[in-house]
Amino acid sequence: MDSELHFITLSTRDLDAARGFYVEGLGWKPLMDVPGEIVFFQVAPGLTIGFFDSGKFAEDQNRPGEISGVSGVTLSHNVGSREAVDATVEKLSAVGVTIVKPPQEGAFGGIYHAHVSDPNGIIWEIAHNPGWRIDGDGKVVFG
Amino acid sequence: MDSELHFITLSTRDLDAARGFYVEGLGWKPLMDVPGEIVFFQVAPGLTIGFFDSGKFAEDQNRPGEISGVSGVTLSHNVGSREAVDATVEKLSAVGVTIVKPPQEGAFGGIYHAHVSDPNGIIWEIAHNPGWRIDGDGKVVFG
Repeated sequence: MDSELHFITLSTRDLDAARGFYVEGLGWKPLMDVPGEIVFFQVAPGLTIGFFDSGKFAEDQNRPGEISGVSGVTLSHNVGSREAVDATVEKLSAVGVTIVKPPQEGAFGGIYHAHVSDPNGIIWEIAHNPGWRIDGDGKVVFG
Repeated sequence: MDSELHFITLSTRDLDAARGFYVEGLGWKPLMDVPGEIVFFQVAPGLTIGFFDSGKFAEDQNRPGEISGVSGVTLSHNVGSREAVDATVEKLSAVGVTIVKPPQEGAFGGIYHAHVSDPNGIIWEIAHNPGWRIDGDGKVVFG
């Protein structure tokens, strides 16, 4: 399949807090790290997330001074069982996330999930979704 | 590699406008479409974007009534040349995007890019980045 999406860039008010959480807390390895500017991580085949200093993010969009954090977005990490949701949330709690929604059955789609917030207020969903899978060729299948 | 990211869910104030743009304008095929609730598209190997009604998005995060659009996020679509950036932006203009930043050299990373806004204010970057590639195994390489 063709990829429509190659990068996700997130306006990051506190880049040091992001680095502390993802690198030191979760053990992710940066693909590139430019202190005071941006830190990139590969998060899926062909896909990179960049945590970009909020001031530079606004400037890059021709909106200098319009500093914002991230809102209206959930990033989801799927795991293989309900127990793995509980265990992942527990692990994330230990490295400083805020729990927005403790593990529970979701209202939609038959999932079991939790929402947590990273140090910059970016929301991650940790989910077990028995009606979802990725085929060997990367194709997403529902149901 | 292990995927850290499986879904991106975007709080969508006008789901019909999103459907009109991505399905009718761009010709994307929904992976699942639940009118009035959510429309999913696969956008990369193993990765799905869900445009989720803003009210239900807030409710799902245990924040009923806190309706927001998306801010602080850029979704990037990389293409193979500067000319392809220009041509893609022209094509998107014809199906109703707002041009936030016309095609030009970026301040960072040696890229040539533009920023456009979808009908819900979600920002897409269309970029040519000669210092970036995806290897055959899905590994992202800079430089």
